[in-house]
Amino acid sequence: MAVIVQKYGGTSVADLEKIRAIARRVSRTREDGNDMVVVLSAMAGETDRLVQLANSASGGEPDRREYDVLVSSGEQISVSLLAIMLNKMGHRAVSLLGYQVRILTDEAHSNAKILDVETGLISGELKRGGIVVVAGFQGVDGKGNITTLGRGGSDTTAVAIAACLKADFCEIFTDVDGVYTTDPNLYDKARKLKRISYDEMLSLAGAGAKVLQHRSVELAKTYGVPVYVRSSFSEDSGTLVTKEDEEMERGVISGVAYDRDQAKVTVVHVPDKPGIAGRLFTPLSDHNIVVDMIIQNASSEGYTDLTFTVSRKDIGEARRLLDPVAKDMGASRIEYDENISKVSIVGVGMKSQSGVASKMFETLANEGINILMISTSEIKISCVIGAKYTELAVMALHDAFGLEQEP
Amino acid sequence: MAVIVQKYGGTSVADLEKIRAIARRVSRTREDGNDMVVVLSAMAGETDRLVQLANSASGGEPDRREYDVLVSSGEQISVSLLAIMLNKMGHRAVSLLGYQVRILTDEAHSNAKILDVETGLISGELKRGGIVVVAGFQGVDGKGNITTLGRGGSDTTAVAIAACLKADFCEIFTDVDGVYTTDPNLYDKARKLKRISYDEMLSLAGAGAKVLQHRSVELAKTYGVPVYVRSSFSEDSGTLVTKEDEEMERGVISGVAYDRDQAKVTVVHVPDKPGIAGRLFTPLSDHNIVVDMIIQNASSEGYTDLTFTVSRKDIGEARRLLDPVAKDMGASRIEYDENISKVSIVGVGMKSQSGVASKMFETLANEGINILMISTSEIKISCVIGAKYTELAVMALHDAFGLEQEP
Repeated sequence: MAVIVQKYGGTSVADLEKIRAIARRVSRTREDGNDMVVVLSAMAGETDRLVQLANSASGGEPDRREYDVLVSSGEQISVSLLAIMLNKMGHRAVSLLGYQVRILTDEAHSNAKILDVETGLISGELKRGGIVVVAGFQGVDGKGNITTLGRGGSDTTAVAIAACLKADFCEIFTDVDGVYTTDPNLYDKARKLKRISYDEMLSLAGAGAKVLQHRSVELAKTYGVPVYVRSSFSEDSGTLVTKEDEEMERGVISGVAYDRDQAKVTVVHVPDKPGIAGRLFTPLSDHNIVVDMIIQNASSEGYTDLTFTVSRKDIGEARRLLDPVAKDMGASRIEYDENISKVSIVGVGMKSQSGVASKMFETLANEGINILMISTSEIKISCVIGAKYTELAVMALHDAFGLEQEP
Repeated sequence: MAVIVQKYGGTSVADLEKIRAIARRVSRTREDGNDMVVVLSAMAGETDRLVQLANSASGGEPDRREYDVLVSSGEQISVSLLAIMLNKMGHRAVSLLGYQVRILTDEAHSNAKILDVETGLISGELKRGGIVVVAGFQGVDGKGNITTLGRGGSDTTAVAIAACLKADFCEIFTDVDGVYTTDPNLYDKARKLKRISYDEMLSLAGAGAKVLQHRSVELAKTYGVPVYVRSSFSEDSGTLVTKEDEEMERGVISGVAYDRDQAKVTVVHVPDKPGIAGRLFTPLSDHNIVVDMIIQNASSEGYTDLTFTVSRKDIGEARRLLDPVAKDMGASRIEYDENISKVSIVGVGMKSQSGVASKMFETLANEGINILMISTSEIKISCVIGAKYTELAVMALHDAFGLEQEP
C-alpha cells in the first residue's frame, strides 16, 4: 500500500513483447494495492533513429527547439502502447506527456532542467484508481515549447515525480540488476552493491557510470527519495541508493568508473591576466557546454597553459566558440584532443583513509599508463589517460582495491 | 503578398529527400513575399506502422484515448524535420503541434471534429516573419486530451486554419495533380478538371473520391476558402475548388466516384412499428459510426426490411451493437455483407437535365451489373453493386457520359 514510481529504460521497452512483460509487472504491483506511476523512455533504437533523422535533415546541428519536438515523439509511442496494454488487462491507465503532466523545465533545449512537476493531474488519476504512465525525458518550458532533458533524462523525470508526489520510493528498471563496483560489461569481476549512498552514486555518475543520470541522483538526495536500481528482466531486489548510514558496506572505495565521452582542450601559452578563465568558460556555459576538469599551470614569465575537458559531443561547438577567444587573448595556440578518457575511483571510505590517491597513481604507473590530468574531491579521484588504456586501467584499479570481494 | 496555407500529404513527406523538396517549394513561396503556414501529414507508412503497433498491443480495439496519443506522434516527426530544414536554409520556422496551436476538437477520439482554431500563436509568428509548420490530423479536446481527426484529417486542419486565419487560399499538395473525372489509377481515360464547385467536390468526396476529405470541403464551402488541389511533384496549377460560377465546365456530370470501403447491413422481416429506425441508428451514431445509404422497403403484412451501409472498418462494432437490438425488435435475422461497393456519378449539370439516372441504370444493366441499392441527391446518383463489378462500372459510366472529352 505505497505510492511507487517505476521507471523503465529503452531496452526494457524495446519491443511489444518487452512492453507486455512490463505491463504484467506493473499490473502485479498495482494489484498488490500500490498506487502506480510508470515513467518510460522511448523504445530502444527509436531515439537514435530520430537523432539520425535530425542530423540528416540539418547536415548536423539541427535547430534545437525543433530537435526537441522531434526526439520527444519517441516516448509518446512507448507510453501509449503500455497504456493500451494496461487498459486491455482491465486496468484504468492514462498516458501523460511532459506538457500534459506539466513538467516545467528551463529553456535549455535538449539539456533542460526540471523546475517543477505539477502533481494535480497525476494525483487525481491515482485517486480514481488509475495507473499513470508518464513520458520520460521531456518537459515544457514556460512559453509552451517542448524541451528534452538530455540522454538518461527519464531517470530524472521519475525521481522528480517521486519527489513532488512524496512517493514512498522510486524504482529504476534497467538492463543491469543494480549498481556494480565497475561496469560488468567491461570487467567480469565487477560485484553488485546492495546499497550505496547518494554521494557515492553522484560521484560514480559524474565519473561516467551510466547506470543513473547524475541529475536524478541529485534530486533523490535533495528530496530524500529512496531509489532502487533493478533489472526489468529479473526479480532481484537490486541496489538501494539512499542516505549514508551504518549498514553501508565499508570498503575504502566502492567503485571504479570510466568515461570515454571526454575531450581535452588546452589553451597554450596564454598571457596570465585576471579574467582569462572567465573569458574562456562564459561562452561555453552560455551554450550549456559543461566543463568538467580544469587545470591551470603555474604561471611562467607571465604566461600559462590552461587545460580542461568537455563532453566529446560538444567539441565541435566548443571549437567554434573558443578559437576566436583564444586568438583574441593572445594564446599561441589551442589544442583539442578527443583521444582521451577519464578513470575514477569513488568511495566515502577515502575520507578517513590516507594513501588512496598514491595507490591509484602507482597502480596506473605499474601498468605503464601515463596520467594526463588529475582531479580530486572528497570521495573521488579522477585521472585523464589515453583512451586506449581505459580497460586496462579499470581492471588494474578494481584488482588493486580488492573490489571483487565484499568488504 | 498573400497569406497561404499549404498542406502536404504523407506521400509528399515520405522521406528526407521529399521533405527537402517541400522545404525548397515553401522557401520559394516565402521568398516571393507570402506569409506561409504549412500543414503536414505523417511520413507515408508511419501512421500505418503506428496503427499496427496499437492493434498488436491490444489484440484489436485499442483504448481510443491512447490510440490517439500513439498515432499523433507521426506528424510530430514530419513537422519538426521540415522546420529543421527551413531553419537550416536561413528561414525562421517553428513547428506547432495540435495542442500548441490549440486546434480545439470535440472528444470523439480518432474521429474528432474541429471546433475552433486559435490563431494567436500562428499570427504572431507570421508577423515576426516566421514560417509556421503545423501538425495535421491532430487536435486537443477541452480536457487537454490529444485527439485525431481520422484519416485524411490533415486536409481539414489546413482548411480550418486557412478559414480562421482568413488566408487568401489553401493549397492541398498530394500525389495527384488535381481532381479527375474519375480515379486515374483505375481508368487511364480520366481527365483532370480545372475547376470544380464545392458542392460537386463534396459529392465526390462523400462518394468515395479520396482526393480531399469531405469535412475539409464542407469547411472550405462554409468559409469560402479557395482550395487548390495540386501535385507536390510538379508545377501544374492543379484543380481549383471554389464557388459555382459561370466559368465552370458545363457537362451533365463532372465525375464518377467509387467507394470500396462500404458494407451493407440488412435487418430482415422486422415488425414495422414507429421508432425502429431510431432504435437501430442511435447506438451507431453514439459510437460515431456513420450510416450512409438507408432503404426501407414498403411494409408488407406489418413487417419490413431495412437496409443500410456503413464504413467497412466499423462493421465489427456495428455487429456488436446491432445484433442484440435486432433480436430485441423481433427481426427474423440481420445480414452483413462486406462484398459490395458504391459507384456514383456527380455533377451540377444533372439538376437541369432529365434522363441522367435512367442512363446510369441502363449503362450498368448493359454490362450485366445488378443494382443492390440506389440513392439520389440533387447532384449525385449512387448505386451499390457487387464489389467485383467496381472497375467495370466506373469505366462504363465514364464512357457513357463522355467524360474523357472536355465539354
